[in-house]
Amino acid sequence: MHAPNDTISAIATAPGAGGVSVIRISGPDAYSVADRVFRCAGPPPSRRAAFTFTTGQVVEADGTVVDEALALFFRAPRSFTREDVVELQGHGGPAVTRHVLRRTLEAGARPAEPGEFTRRAFLNGRLDLVQAEAVLDLIRARTDRAAAAAMDQLRGGLTPRLTHLYETLLELAANLEATLDFADQELPDTILTGLAERVSRLENEVKDLLATWNEGHLLRDGATVVIAGKPNVGKSTLLNTLLGRDRAIVSDQPGTTRDTVEEGLVLEGIALNLVDTAGLRDTTCRIEQEGIRRTEDRLRDADVFIYLVDSSQPIDKEDEARIKSLDSARCLVVANKQDLPGARTPALPTELTSIPVSLKTGSGLDFFRSELVRVLHSGRASSIQHATISERHRTLLQSALDEIHQAGEHLAGRTTPDPSLAAQALRNGVAPIGLILGREYHEDMLDSIFS
Amino acid sequence: MHAPNDTISAIATAPGAGGVSVIRISGPDAYSVADRVFRCAGPPPSRRAAFTFTTGQVVEADGTVVDEALALFFRAPRSFTREDVVELQGHGGPAVTRHVLRRTLEAGARPAEPGEFTRRAFLNGRLDLVQAEAVLDLIRARTDRAAAAAMDQLRGGLTPRLTHLYETLLELAANLEATLDFADQELPDTILTGLAERVSRLENEVKDLLATWNEGHLLRDGATVVIAGKPNVGKSTLLNTLLGRDRAIVSDQPGTTRDTVEEGLVLEGIALNLVDTAGLRDTTCRIEQEGIRRTEDRLRDADVFIYLVDSSQPIDKEDEARIKSLDSARCLVVANKQDLPGARTPALPTELTSIPVSLKTGSGLDFFRSELVRVLHSGRASSIQHATISERHRTLLQSALDEIHQAGEHLAGRTTPDPSLAAQALRNGVAPIGLILGREYHEDMLDSIFS
Repeated sequence: MHAPNDTISAIATAPGAGGVSVIRISGPDAYSVADRVFRCAGPPPSRRAAFTFTTGQVVEADGTVVDEALALFFRAPRSFTREDVVELQGHGGPAVTRHVLRRTLEAGARPAEPGEFTRRAFLNGRLDLVQAEAVLDLIRARTDRAAAAAMDQLRGGLTPRLTHLYETLLELAANLEATLDFADQELPDTILTGLAERVSRLENEVKDLLATWNEGHLLRDGATVVIAGKPNVGKSTLLNTLLGRDRAIVSDQPGTTRDTVEEGLVLEGIALNLVDTAGLRDTTCRIEQEGIRRTEDRLRDADVFIYLVDSSQPIDKEDEARIKSLDSARCLVVANKQDLPGARTPALPTELTSIPVSLKTGSGLDFFRSELVRVLHSGRASSIQHATISERHRTLLQSALDEIHQAGEHLAGRTTPDPSLAAQALRNGVAPIGLILGREYHEDMLDSIFS
Repeated sequence: MHAPNDTISAIATAPGAGGVSVIRISGPDAYSVADRVFRCAGPPPSRRAAFTFTTGQVVEADGTVVDEALALFFRAPRSFTREDVVELQGHGGPAVTRHVLRRTLEAGARPAEPGEFTRRAFLNGRLDLVQAEAVLDLIRARTDRAAAAAMDQLRGGLTPRLTHLYETLLELAANLEATLDFADQELPDTILTGLAERVSRLENEVKDLLATWNEGHLLRDGATVVIAGKPNVGKSTLLNTLLGRDRAIVSDQPGTTRDTVEEGLVLEGIALNLVDTAGLRDTTCRIEQEGIRRTEDRLRDADVFIYLVDSSQPIDKEDEARIKSLDSARCLVVANKQDLPGARTPALPTELTSIPVSLKTGSGLDFFRSELVRVLHSGRASSIQHATISERHRTLLQSALDEIHQAGEHLAGRTTPDPSLAAQALRNGVAPIGLILGREYHEDMLDSIFS
């Protein structure tokens, strides 16, 4: 493993205005950069002891003060990246922070790529790849549950299970290969049966890990919830009701919303991106057509659809066709306007039932919220706070699972078991686990993880 | 001066996701709070030396790890607030950062009010009030020029000028009072003339300070630029053109925009908030009416209006009435669609000229941008990077100026000068300057500055 040998610098705190911000410089020239931009009483940064800090000023080349700041001094390998690191903590205004960063670049640092400090922490062996991913997850986590799961992963929640998989695969493969030294008659039946059982248990372990994906996806990425339906069924009113404020213009005239309106909301620990869309209808209005085109774009990548209908009107062919085209496992049909005379429960395809609500009176909203949470968890109740696998892990674990399953088939072969092919399959399953842990990696893979 | 005697805690970095975040704890119990939430090898926080830091974990009461973090130790009076301070630097995810904050509150800290750390720095005498305001300005600054002006103010750019004013007022008042000990005939004319000249110079000094307000306002607050005009003259296209991307839905149908569309843009160091509005017209459409009502709201608090007209059409009575109602010093009339046959330069009130552009071909846009910058600076070219007064300073300086002007009048009295009334007026002028510097203050004033 190796990290590039240059010195990088970046704003390490969130963008925007705050009381303080941190600019981090990491690499062999961190101290010569700091000497050029940071002025303090007493010795310059390069002559300071590791794990100390001091007050001073970030200055221009001509001595003009850019900011008053603290400088924190770390020496390789006792730093986040295992390299020499200097952190400048200054006032957290966006302009002054960018200016301090610019000074470090003028003084010889290169702008860090997104995730590059964490990438170096991995390349320099301070974190395995699953832990490095946990750092990124922790930073992105928008809810307590997501943060707790990421912290569990950072502190090793997934690593031992994956390491155990990795080592067991190798061990079982070696054991299977060892049976080849015996003539068929010499090998006690129990040995192969025992190995087959262990392969089967391993298969279940991988399946258990794979089953954490859906929760992990929700915790990491949140869910995009798109509100769709014909014009004037109450989509913008539903958005405003869920948010508890008057975000989108509402009127009783069909086709009010045109530009897509998006807002964030946290529901039971899950971060939602709520999207209110233009009503779906045949229209000759070109602005509305553009709005509807944008709606259909959003429907494609939604995690959950809320399809609103007006329960005082019969469901027509258009509604029916749209509802049938939606994935029923991800769809909630909400029958609004229950307060109107003649409101009815619409007839729907068997796998769907509609949720009667009145956005005007508020009736049915609690049930609707609980149904929304149920669909988000794909029907399973959940309060997971431990490490869960990511999309990248899932793809690789699926490959490993396929190989382990193959190995099982070879051992349960109808005529005679084939330990040689089974061992080969298990060895094929080792590589994807190694890629998850970062025991093996390639640059493209790291680029896509850390960018 | 005194600060409340409790211990406060807050997230000191900007909200949102970043690599690291800082939670600051300040007050007499900072170390007992830190001992409860921060676990590290070696001695606990309360037994650590000032100006050192260490690695460790922020933990729940039951020992569960919330985050891995650095802790920085400061001891009164060598800290930002002159109180005991502990800073926890953890991973910068929004959820984990809030969780760490919550732990410090559970352990006995109170949530800090906005600006409360800086308020304590002022109350404890580390900064004067003008410098404390500069810290807030620096944090809010969105452009390099605004940040440089705030840094100049923090490092004392305004303080000496205001202190000089304060002291000179007191000295002149005392000198004027001293003249009362003389009988009229005994007092040489030159003494009162000399004092009158000094009062007049002081008046000009205050006027010079007041003149920095417009620049200061632009640098601090940026400018709200509202794009208005009748439907379908190209308002959304102008917004998209200035932003360089496709933000608002554009069509050739009048009345496309309804929800107000707002975006930020920096033009020559000035942060602009560009607002695209619903086209102004009589309409029976209630959604459009609501959009137009929102437009008129925005026009009231705009710094600059861009009024767009279609130069292929004659200006009608409605346009004429609107243009006349706008403050000509803050208005740019842009005559779009110069590419169309029959485009003309519209006749406007004498103090306004229109800027011919074609958003379709891009012609005239450079001139438009330079005119926009000119109007932003109220006609004066500017590249101010030094301290400028704020709205609060302006109001107080204006009171001081009125008193100083009165004093001058009393000295230039048509029959006989009145040194006694002049001295009283100068003494009246001292109080507002004292309020600017924070030599005198009241809680309401601090609340409005630091909130």
